[in-house]
Amino acid sequence: MSGNTFGKLFTVTTFGESHGPALGAIVDGCPPGLPLSEADLQGDLDRRRPGTSRHTTQRREPDQVRILSGVFEGVTTGTSIGLLIENTDQRSKDYSKIKDQFRPAHADYTYHHKYGVRDYRGGGRSSARETAMRVAAGAIAKKYLATMGIQVRGYMSQLGPIEIAFKEWQAVGENAFFCPDPDKVPELEAYMDQLRRDQDSVGAKISVVAEGLPPGLGEPVFDRLDADLAHGLMSINAVKGVEIGAGFASVAQRGSEHRDEMTPEGFLSNHAGGVLGGISSGQPLIAHLALKPTSSITTPGRSIDVHGNPVEVITKGRHDPCVGIRATPIAEAMMALTLIDHLLRHRAQNLDVRVDTPRLS
Amino acid sequence: MSGNTFGKLFTVTTFGESHGPALGAIVDGCPPGLPLSEADLQGDLDRRRPGTSRHTTQRREPDQVRILSGVFEGVTTGTSIGLLIENTDQRSKDYSKIKDQFRPAHADYTYHHKYGVRDYRGGGRSSARETAMRVAAGAIAKKYLATMGIQVRGYMSQLGPIEIAFKEWQAVGENAFFCPDPDKVPELEAYMDQLRRDQDSVGAKISVVAEGLPPGLGEPVFDRLDADLAHGLMSINAVKGVEIGAGFASVAQRGSEHRDEMTPEGFLSNHAGGVLGGISSGQPLIAHLALKPTSSITTPGRSIDVHGNPVEVITKGRHDPCVGIRATPIAEAMMALTLIDHLLRHRAQNLDVRVDTPRLS
Amino acid sequence: MSGNTFGKLFTVTTFGESHGPALGAIVDGCPPGLPLSEADLQGDLDRRRPGTSRHTTQRREPDQVRILSGVFEGVTTGTSIGLLIENTDQRSKDYSKIKDQFRPAHADYTYHHKYGVRDYRGGGRSSARETAMRVAAGAIAKKYLATMGIQVRGYMSQLGPIEIAFKEWQAVGENAFFCPDPDKVPELEAYMDQLRRDQDSVGAKISVVAEGLPPGLGEPVFDRLDADLAHGLMSINAVKGVEIGAGFASVAQRGSEHRDEMTPEGFLSNHAGGVLGGISSGQPLIAHLALKPTSSITTPGRSIDVHGNPVEVITKGRHDPCVGIRATPIAEAMMALTLIDHLLRHRAQNLDVRVDTPRLS
Amino acid sequence: MSGNTFGKLFTVTTFGESHGPALGAIVDGCPPGLPLSEADLQGDLDRRRPGTSRHTTQRREPDQVRILSGVFEGVTTGTSIGLLIENTDQRSKDYSKIKDQFRPAHADYTYHHKYGVRDYRGGGRSSARETAMRVAAGAIAKKYLATMGIQVRGYMSQLGPIEIAFKEWQAVGENAFFCPDPDKVPELEAYMDQLRRDQDSVGAKISVVAEGLPPGLGEPVFDRLDADLAHGLMSINAVKGVEIGAGFASVAQRGSEHRDEMTPEGFLSNHAGGVLGGISSGQPLIAHLALKPTSSITTPGRSIDVHGNPVEVITKGRHDPCVGIRATPIAEAMMALTLIDHLLRHRAQNLDVRVDTPRLS
Repeated sequence: MSGNTFGKLFTVTTFGESHGPALGAIVDGCPPGLPLSEADLQGDLDRRRPGTSRHTTQRREPDQVRILSGVFEGVTTGTSIGLLIENTDQRSKDYSKIKDQFRPAHADYTYHHKYGVRDYRGGGRSSARETAMRVAAGAIAKKYLATMGIQVRGYMSQLGPIEIAFKEWQAVGENAFFCPDPDKVPELEAYMDQLRRDQDSVGAKISVVAEGLPPGLGEPVFDRLDADLAHGLMSINAVKGVEIGAGFASVAQRGSEHRDEMTPEGFLSNHAGGVLGGISSGQPLIAHLALKPTSSITTPGRSIDVHGNPVEVITKGRHDPCVGIRATPIAEAMMALTLIDHLLRHRAQNLDVRVDTPRLS
Repeated sequence: MSGNTFGKLFTVTTFGESHGPALGAIVDGCPPGLPLSEADLQGDLDRRRPGTSRHTTQRREPDQVRILSGVFEGVTTGTSIGLLIENTDQRSKDYSKIKDQFRPAHADYTYHHKYGVRDYRGGGRSSARETAMRVAAGAIAKKYLATMGIQVRGYMSQLGPIEIAFKEWQAVGENAFFCPDPDKVPELEAYMDQLRRDQDSVGAKISVVAEGLPPGLGEPVFDRLDADLAHGLMSINAVKGVEIGAGFASVAQRGSEHRDEMTPEGFLSNHAGGVLGGISSGQPLIAHLALKPTSSITTPGRSIDVHGNPVEVITKGRHDPCVGIRATPIAEAMMALTLIDHLLRHRAQNLDVRVDTPRLS
Repeated sequence: MSGNTFGKLFTVTTFGESHGPALGAIVDGCPPGLPLSEADLQGDLDRRRPGTSRHTTQRREPDQVRILSGVFEGVTTGTSIGLLIENTDQRSKDYSKIKDQFRPAHADYTYHHKYGVRDYRGGGRSSARETAMRVAAGAIAKKYLATMGIQVRGYMSQLGPIEIAFKEWQAVGENAFFCPDPDKVPELEAYMDQLRRDQDSVGAKISVVAEGLPPGLGEPVFDRLDADLAHGLMSINAVKGVEIGAGFASVAQRGSEHRDEMTPEGFLSNHAGGVLGGISSGQPLIAHLALKPTSSITTPGRSIDVHGNPVEVITKGRHDPCVGIRATPIAEAMMALTLIDHLLRHRAQNLDVRVDTPRLS
Repeated sequence: MSGNTFGKLFTVTTFGESHGPALGAIVDGCPPGLPLSEADLQGDLDRRRPGTSRHTTQRREPDQVRILSGVFEGVTTGTSIGLLIENTDQRSKDYSKIKDQFRPAHADYTYHHKYGVRDYRGGGRSSARETAMRVAAGAIAKKYLATMGIQVRGYMSQLGPIEIAFKEWQAVGENAFFCPDPDKVPELEAYMDQLRRDQDSVGAKISVVAEGLPPGLGEPVFDRLDADLAHGLMSINAVKGVEIGAGFASVAQRGSEHRDEMTPEGFLSNHAGGVLGGISSGQPLIAHLALKPTSSITTPGRSIDVHGNPVEVITKGRHDPCVGIRATPIAEAMMALTLIDHLLRHRAQNLDVRVDTPRLS
């Protein structure tokens, strides 16, 4: 209720601050009998991990996850799964200057007004370091979904002004940007190198796709699949927009163009992005998210301190010049967590439903 | 859990089908002592009501709401508030043709696969008629928020290809489009008239703004104010995209441009849209939503029936050629419901917080 | 969250005051395809209905329920079910005296302090009239459970000082007390007649049993089946105690006596009351509840008014001299609602579980 | 949703098995600014800790708790609090015999049918070892409640056949039984020594009391304070019954006797146990709970194995002969957690309520 839990039937509750001793999560509601080990989680954690290229923060965290419960003899038991990652690279430094200042576009000012007290070291709870636990929990969801033939994948579709058309999944894992077009990578690298020289940051757009979904997931009217997905994606640090399928392009579309006609061979288009009436149609579920530029830049900015006095703020430290670069596995995790939650919700109520109508895709 | 409830502390649970006897809602968690009568709800219901101009469906529903509990001697008692609207204009007609067909871009196909059975009359539960109850409940939220100095308002910011820059709130209530620029109205009318002649439909973009918010609303990390708002807005029929503040424009922005600097006199810009780290900053909360074109058009479309056979579908009946036109009060309602819920959540935990730092806006 | 909802997957949200225009409920999460009509609900409503014998309140309410949504062509559709009962026998009377007084053992004093305002007519929301909606919703749950071979039944096991040993289910429906021993009925009638002459009231003990349960229902560690059942039963007006199986008798039992041994033919006893580790064992689920004597008696009592002054209170009106008499269908409803909720929760997570071990009962 | 979370606004989610590497919890919703250190939690953990007298299990666990997040510079920050206790005394032993057997009155049989797989080492998740985390979280709740003048305390009121009348709080902390009458302690010790010689176990009754409560806590109609308390207490391992105030004695009481009359000086009795209409009255909140005898005894018992074959089970290992002896701090924790949750829920909705009526106690 205080915001640290995601999901209703497959729930993830997290804790941990950027510079605290550890991050942790409890995953509750995972079906029993799923083969699971720490290695299953480590893959996605490594994809999200900082310090793997010169384009991300140089903080070095191994992000080694431990499973503390809920798995016995290699399979899940149906009881709650405790996860823990110890923080290892929290550099001790002098926070005396920053503790009374509000960095522009950060959560400093709002945490201060909400809680009256805040852990100012590295952003505390508001740091994107928290997303490591989303990725760990999301990996469990992904593994279960995979047993149902459902695959969740994402890629970068825009970096600053550079739009990236989807070319192939293979490429995504082979560059630091999750870029699906290998020919675009040099352009992205050049852009990032210039950005660092400019001491500035930039936004990005990520696309996420789930394939192999059955029709039927999503609970009208408020807990539509797309609504809960929007919730999950918008809850990621720095996200400022979410689209399903055609998204904002729908505004200028005509009904005769937007509607996805059906034939016995399948849907003829997918403007809907895989959701009709809040329920999965069996087509690929497609979402796009906009991430704002990193707020931490070394270019000085105007702000105030806790007493209301004007100050000039320079954010030093080790920061990602584009938080979007590491956001792909996080977005995948949130989509996977949304899907497994709705899969469990759907079958709770609709277990007995049988229809003869063929499924399209 | 099955999706018909919105909110956690101020909850709205709804029922009702397009052609059933009535729509209803239970609002739970409204603070006691709020002066409330049916007239307070009727205003927004009338703004959403069909049949008030030639640009919306000609179904005529008075949408007269009754308060059945939770209000005593003119004030709320703190107990659950029962709301009821009887359906009066459900024309009896022959559904024998439509009952076995799936209209393209409607929820027919997905409801069929999810539930195995569906009320096909007018879309049943998937009809946008359901949103009347959101508006009724939202009006209660708005009234309470108003006692705190918080005002929620919306307007149309794009109709199909026609972008509409905000001019003045006054104009919004004086035309059928919720258009904030009176000079644009003739263009909108001409566009809609042509659209009807084309037997087609079109999308729209709506913007919603809350002013007078205190800093502090929103629960990191998953129940951020913007995440819950995205959930609420995306749960509205036909919505395909949600933006907070700069939204997708953030992608191409640089950090030095996007970050909203602060001075003792206030924020210097509002790219964030009033939310930092998932918590309200005290600036106006700004969201934009994209609505797809109405799926029901008289131009024939390809589809299948429940047996998987190809059919040609023509959707007759009384439909809005642009569902976005009546969406403004619905979007306001969802923002108001999100805000009151977070207001209650915030004060539950943070009641005792006192800081001397001045609030900016 | 404000307390008017029961259940997590099969939820019942209610509204309505004793002397308001109507009572209502929304049942969400009912599986689709269940044949359902108002007649299915009316049976239990009639069992709970006041005024059917001289031993209950003489208020006469037909308690005619209407289904307003969620059922189409005779079966549930999986969408939310709206229920409504109009109040017809709220006598207008002069409340000027009672409105500023707190009746002893009633909720007047606590509602006043909690909400600052209260509907004092007949107890408002705190009246047991609210339980009609529990019974209506419970009847839906019962009908679904019956399709799974699960039957929920209750009986009176003590009236004031008179203990009633279980004899036969047949008898329960044939007297005004839900007494399972027909030979005891004259003694109960004589006791009640004397009680009325004494202008006093008395408590009662009700027992509820579910048979035909599969093993596996209940979610450790906090949402054990017995814990959620205790929640449901204790939420009934006037209930002061709940026991599962041997209940308080367990305190003086030895482990060698209490433990229910198992053989291939089944359990050898049922001290556990059908729950082990918070999960149903397949044995009959057995609960007992204690109801306090009705607070409304005509014998004068000492109290205070809203200004803190001493007053003498005489509660007139039409009251049950033993609220326990009509409590059996309510207790059954709460057990049925608990069970269907856990049935859905169980299968959401554990759908794929298959074991070869035989089930005992 | 899968049962490992307690509370709605102040939530506790736990994980951990008896013989796993660690137990953990996440406490979400704790108000910021509360001074808190590990020492605050250790006191109650030590009261619950095994191996402190010859009357409890000889397993030796230091139960040293670590706070991993949510506390900064000695005060809570309002973000989620991660807690961890490492298991140190899980003796490795041969489980080959026990793994395919169901111990009578244990959760073995039901976990097996529910999940298909179970951690059989020491009962896994069903072990009462899990309650350590309830106590740790409860200590946080207690500390916050204390700042509001609310004190939660418990004592043993019956051990097997020996009833214990309350004498003084001072005594409770000075013996191994939480016995409030020092003169009874020798009798309890003699009884326990004989019980061990008999190789048997016995039940107990615990009473819990909260003093200093304001009137107003509790959410009618389903989330009454007593209903949620019953849920919390019944969720403790081995609990088979819960009473509020007069409890089952209410059954034989007359209304003229049971009703607690009020005078300007206060209530004249407390049969209600501090709750009227599901809302705290300001009187002491009183609950009693019945704990069954420990199921693990060395006397052989009949059972079956996973194949349905009859087996004779002898439960060796280190077990409490009366689980009730260590239950007092656990019951206190559950009452404290229920109260803080309702305190937050109450003020969320009813913050603005002001009445002039004096409060009684």
